[in-house]
Amino acid sequence: MLGAVLHAPGDVRVEQREDPRIVDPTDAVIRLSATCVCGSDLWPYRGIERVDGPSPMGHEYVGVVEEVGDEVRDVRPGQFVVGSFFASDNTCEVCRAGYQSSCVHRVPMGGIGAQAELLRVPLADGTLVATPEMPSDDLVPSLLAASDVLGTGWFAAVAAEVGPGKTVAVVGDGAVGLLGVLAARELGAERVIAMSRHESRQELALDFGATDVVTERGDEGVARVRDLTDGLGAHSVIEAVGTQESMMQAIRSTRPGGHVGYVGVTHDVALPGMELFFSHVHLHGGPAPVRRFLPELIDLVLERRIDPGKVFDLTLTLDQAAEGYRAMDERRAVKTLLRP
Amino acid sequence: MLGAVLHAPGDVRVEQREDPRIVDPTDAVIRLSATCVCGSDLWPYRGIERVDGPSPMGHEYVGVVEEVGDEVRDVRPGQFVVGSFFASDNTCEVCRAGYQSSCVHRVPMGGIGAQAELLRVPLADGTLVATPEMPSDDLVPSLLAASDVLGTGWFAAVAAEVGPGKTVAVVGDGAVGLLGVLAARELGAERVIAMSRHESRQELALDFGATDVVTERGDEGVARVRDLTDGLGAHSVIEAVGTQESMMQAIRSTRPGGHVGYVGVTHDVALPGMELFFSHVHLHGGPAPVRRFLPELIDLVLERRIDPGKVFDLTLTLDQAAEGYRAMDERRAVKTLLRP
Repeated sequence: MLGAVLHAPGDVRVEQREDPRIVDPTDAVIRLSATCVCGSDLWPYRGIERVDGPSPMGHEYVGVVEEVGDEVRDVRPGQFVVGSFFASDNTCEVCRAGYQSSCVHRVPMGGIGAQAELLRVPLADGTLVATPEMPSDDLVPSLLAASDVLGTGWFAAVAAEVGPGKTVAVVGDGAVGLLGVLAARELGAERVIAMSRHESRQELALDFGATDVVTERGDEGVARVRDLTDGLGAHSVIEAVGTQESMMQAIRSTRPGGHVGYVGVTHDVALPGMELFFSHVHLHGGPAPVRRFLPELIDLVLERRIDPGKVFDLTLTLDQAAEGYRAMDERRAVKTLLRP
Repeated sequence: MLGAVLHAPGDVRVEQREDPRIVDPTDAVIRLSATCVCGSDLWPYRGIERVDGPSPMGHEYVGVVEEVGDEVRDVRPGQFVVGSFFASDNTCEVCRAGYQSSCVHRVPMGGIGAQAELLRVPLADGTLVATPEMPSDDLVPSLLAASDVLGTGWFAAVAAEVGPGKTVAVVGDGAVGLLGVLAARELGAERVIAMSRHESRQELALDFGATDVVTERGDEGVARVRDLTDGLGAHSVIEAVGTQESMMQAIRSTRPGGHVGYVGVTHDVALPGMELFFSHVHLHGGPAPVRRFLPELIDLVLERRIDPGKVFDLTLTLDQAAEGYRAMDERRAVKTLLRP
């Protein structure tokens, strides 16, 4: 089969890889309907995360089950399924508490490589969620978004305790930040402040329900959020970048007693204890337990209540993956969808 | 009047200070029944926090109202009152959200100096809570504990989302940590693991309801907590020290999805973003909004359901304050009560 492999920073190739097969009796193999490039894929692509030899890429996927192992009970060949970036048993104590991305048996899907024609999914029963029937093709991008960026933005909003009557600020205008805006509105936020300097992203944020746009960054951005919130800061702040600057912008934009939900994969971040202590914020985040939210998010997509697939502003075939990476790296695209 | 003044690291003197008087119409002046030395007073005493000239000391206090300003409505001369380390209006949006220690009008009481015979309390209505009648003298230490260390340990337990069925670990065996143990049991924790190497403090922890004692620290302590919790870590961890080591010990002792409540005033702490991200913990803390809890804590003390005053293992007269500091600095005493 064809699959994308990162050989070195900047060097993504779509090449022949061995067809996956059932290894453990809890595995499934799926034929991908769509996959995509994640902002977090850009870290190794840019050489900020080390690349140790050729690495299969991709961890976002929807597709049709081809084959299941002997112990798989809840999904079967022919079903359309959505999974996410950690395989999980969904039965351990950590999963039952809603943290499937810290499942005691978790398997990172990025190591298996979902930017491909076929994908082995470990712990299929605990990882995959099947749709009631084959979805119409125009819904595939939104179902794919649920696999990571929507699930992650949604988790950020939940971690930030977004709810009715609250003012939410969103730091980061990538796909996750934009879908954090969507999640905040769906979860009842009264006011959603999108922080973005890019016109096309601002438009998408407004389309997803942002009520205000702040173009300033850093301390100026914080000051603007405070101006909009009686000097106090937002109740809930979604952090969807992962840098020191964005984390501090998020913490400083939050009122005392407020909540920061952070989902940008952190790189070279060190939070100053004293400032955090006196900020009085709640801090929660990490790799989104997307599996917790998948059934609900799939329903919202199938009911056409939300259209998160709009974050894909570039669609290519799988063999064009290298261009998909380049376009995101150069910020010509928010997010690239790949059709195998 | 007499009051304790820190002149330089290690140099606390009880000397004549000007009698306080009503400055603002929202002030009260109280005559102290008892005050005490706080673990956080040891930071400047040890020279870890800078001492800029003579500083009045102390921020924990109970006493009898002597005089109130024209705009004070809820407390009156003759009443026994408990306050805490930040004066607050208790009416602003931040106070109403339960974060009185970040009140938009807050006044740090440490700057006024409660280790004294008399104390001016700003924003008296929002700061002081009166008891229904003059409490019996043996309850004074426990009411004084409510003023800071009990209120702080209680907030830590609430911030750590302690509740029925949960396993709680407590990092730090000072007065706040010990009262964190008490708070955890009162809030329904099933199991409370006290982390302490000191026999007398272990005994007090067990007396306050600890079910387990872990004597190891750092990574070994973390491993012991994991051993006691099916390898997962505690649901809730109270951090009551404020160092890099204790913060990391707390975070690493918490299971994914669990909660860290941190109240040790942080010094030279920098939290590594990547580890925090993948820990999946909730982090909340800061200066305890003791005022939020005072009515409830005072009731528990007056009903003799709890006896937090046991943390005072040294009682001196105010003029012996220097010895009170020394005893705590040398860890001969957990906490020193001073009687003016």
